[in-house]
Amino acid sequence: MSDFSIRRLDAGNSEFPQDLERLLAWESVADQQVESAVAEILREVKAHGDAAVIEYTNRFDRRDLKNAGDFCLDRAELAAALERIPAEKHVALETAARRVRDYHERQLQSSWQYREADGTVLGQQITPMERVGIYVPGGKASYPSSVLMNAIPARVAGVDEVLMVVPAPDNQLNDLVLAAAAIAGVDRVFTIGGAQAVAALAYGTETVTRVDKIVGPGNIFVASAKRAVFGQVAIDMIAGPSEILVICDGRTDPDWIAMDLLSQAEHDEQAQSILLCPDEQFLDAVASSLQKLLKTLPREAIASRSISDRGALILVRDIEQAIEVANRIAPEHLEVSVDEPEQYLPLIRHAGAIFLGRYTAEALGDYCAGPNHVLPTSGTARFSSPLGVYDFQKRSSIIYCSPRGADTLGRVAATLAKGEGLDAHARSAEYRVASEVEGQD
Amino acid sequence: MSDFSIRRLDAGNSEFPQDLERLLAWESVADQQVESAVAEILREVKAHGDAAVIEYTNRFDRRDLKNAGDFCLDRAELAAALERIPAEKHVALETAARRVRDYHERQLQSSWQYREADGTVLGQQITPMERVGIYVPGGKASYPSSVLMNAIPARVAGVDEVLMVVPAPDNQLNDLVLAAAAIAGVDRVFTIGGAQAVAALAYGTETVTRVDKIVGPGNIFVASAKRAVFGQVAIDMIAGPSEILVICDGRTDPDWIAMDLLSQAEHDEQAQSILLCPDEQFLDAVASSLQKLLKTLPREAIASRSISDRGALILVRDIEQAIEVANRIAPEHLEVSVDEPEQYLPLIRHAGAIFLGRYTAEALGDYCAGPNHVLPTSGTARFSSPLGVYDFQKRSSIIYCSPRGADTLGRVAATLAKGEGLDAHARSAEYRVASEVEGQD
Repeated sequence: MSDFSIRRLDAGNSEFPQDLERLLAWESVADQQVESAVAEILREVKAHGDAAVIEYTNRFDRRDLKNAGDFCLDRAELAAALERIPAEKHVALETAARRVRDYHERQLQSSWQYREADGTVLGQQITPMERVGIYVPGGKASYPSSVLMNAIPARVAGVDEVLMVVPAPDNQLNDLVLAAAAIAGVDRVFTIGGAQAVAALAYGTETVTRVDKIVGPGNIFVASAKRAVFGQVAIDMIAGPSEILVICDGRTDPDWIAMDLLSQAEHDEQAQSILLCPDEQFLDAVASSLQKLLKTLPREAIASRSISDRGALILVRDIEQAIEVANRIAPEHLEVSVDEPEQYLPLIRHAGAIFLGRYTAEALGDYCAGPNHVLPTSGTARFSSPLGVYDFQKRSSIIYCSPRGADTLGRVAATLAKGEGLDAHARSAEYRVASEVEGQD
Repeated sequence: MSDFSIRRLDAGNSEFPQDLERLLAWESVADQQVESAVAEILREVKAHGDAAVIEYTNRFDRRDLKNAGDFCLDRAELAAALERIPAEKHVALETAARRVRDYHERQLQSSWQYREADGTVLGQQITPMERVGIYVPGGKASYPSSVLMNAIPARVAGVDEVLMVVPAPDNQLNDLVLAAAAIAGVDRVFTIGGAQAVAALAYGTETVTRVDKIVGPGNIFVASAKRAVFGQVAIDMIAGPSEILVICDGRTDPDWIAMDLLSQAEHDEQAQSILLCPDEQFLDAVASSLQKLLKTLPREAIASRSISDRGALILVRDIEQAIEVANRIAPEHLEVSVDEPEQYLPLIRHAGAIFLGRYTAEALGDYCAGPNHVLPTSGTARFSSPLGVYDFQKRSSIIYCSPRGADTLGRVAATLAKGEGLDAHARSAEYRVASEVEGQD
């Protein structure tokens, strides 16, 4: 039996801005004990490589690794896992992978150059990273979809080598996760996890080659380790709990909307599900649906807690006001369950992913629609993007001055350099100014 | 008199890989005392807003601020500074700004969509951030070029409001910096600095509106504060000392190459200048030029120390080997001072900016060529890009399923969701599967 309740708010109320602040309040707890434990693990792995990785893995994951070879899986072992899984799951993974690949190929950026009138060429060269590492959680929250979503953009970007780490607590590995790694084209898998796996990827060991970027979700030890190695390597954003914001005109089946809210709530007790609607009766109907449907869920306890603690049904004046509230929240997932939803797109300023129309369940985006399911949480959609191919490419500026270009630009640069008191800068530019060049001949 | 010397290495030597490691070794010192001082400043500004900002500013910058209005400059005051500076500097700043703007406009990304055969629409919506903050150092290292390089990409991206903070120690402000802010289109300037300015931008105060991203260089307090607020807001990379790597075939004037090396060395004692060349006599000639030119520099002491401590002249077999070494180093600035340099572009994998040909002094890129001078340092060009318009835009995925699309995708999503034990996800997708829809009618 769930003691279910859900918060009701009214955007027309004068207290609403403060109510909304309180509803959204969530802060990642920086845990001093976790941080010092992680700092020690990072130091040990940096100093002792594989030996430290083996020791921590045996201790934390109850393994019996003798040497580094024991935590390595090659592509043949991934292919074997793919053979073992049921055909239906195999087909579904392949379909999802193909759609994710198709979508992400449109994100590929290309190098460009242009030539100015005086012959000077400017441009931008775009290149993939050499090697990236994907962290995949093990145990109960082991998600094959996460493997696809993290590895495929790296592959599409042209990354030379994609490594994956996934812990195998008590020697348990999920065949679906390994099968997804096979399909996504992961090159090597290491069955290690926690801060020790992040350290191995960031610093390199005798067996694990150092990577340029680490992506993928993990527990507080993983998040803390990623934050600590940031700068040494690139990382993706540190994710907060998942959230969904649904805007509905009140004419979608309330059971559909309730189940969309529950699909976030079942992730995690801290997940947040919010509905905005101008129709008070519809909010009542969704509340009833939630109560009815919650009881039918295997993960009822988690979902019920999430809905009660962090959920809300919010009455708004109209869809425009709903979008104003959505822009204030900058949600990870935004569902716009109305007729002709595309008309609202220009008004939507901040959201990780936008699901338009009554048929677009958020869950489709989690698995197989094509766009990435790694999305900015906790309002960070104000300044962050979904994981994408652009996360695995980087740019180099190109400057190729003609003698005439160097003459023009050298004079400007020298004036500005002198203004900044940087004499060598000025003179380095002035050497290439035409009168200087002639003077030298 | 400088006690000048420069390290000589040979890439053909079997010890070279280790020599190179030692040459590049540089670690930012994480200073525990600085970090706790910064943590306290952040807490105080978060709790007490303007009052805390005023107190710290009066204390650290020897100011006499009475209220928040005393640290605000509006656009009229920026315009007045622009009137005060010499005409030659005004023209040079305008020229640089125009070229930087022209180049960065080519980085603008656009939203895209595509429709699949069953009517499902997928896409990516690109929007600018709402508000960003630019940190500009005050005092001796006060650089107008940095204002242009940080503010113009934000403006080109379409950011609504660009704020700038610049400390005014002893009430001293640099007119060139304010003039550059006027030209770059900065909206509001606050004459505050240090961790208290970063805190004001990250959390907001009564006077300083909270921003979405903080960019720009600063001292260890600023860098430490940026690292601490990362996640709450976006930040640019934490920069290390500046570096230049020059590849030369030995046929550029050795004085030119020496001055290019010195133009990095004069920045900072920790700056790094390296030359790779297959001609040993040319390395000798550059060493002589360095010795000769150093004595003529106002910043001789700094440059001499940088060259002696961190510089190197490296003999290579040929230009191809030089590029291999460059890719290993992933330099911030890479000069390729050879004939037909464009032929080497496809071989260059990691570099912040690439300067091609004998006429392209690196200093041109610092001021006015067009590309950004905020570049990845300390080998982070392996995974980072120059500051650009893309740093001020973000993406939202778009998914709009047709009923037929929802039917196809719903089946795949449900299969995968069940494999992950996420029942509400599966059922939310299945509600939109056609047989279910028909069943409901």
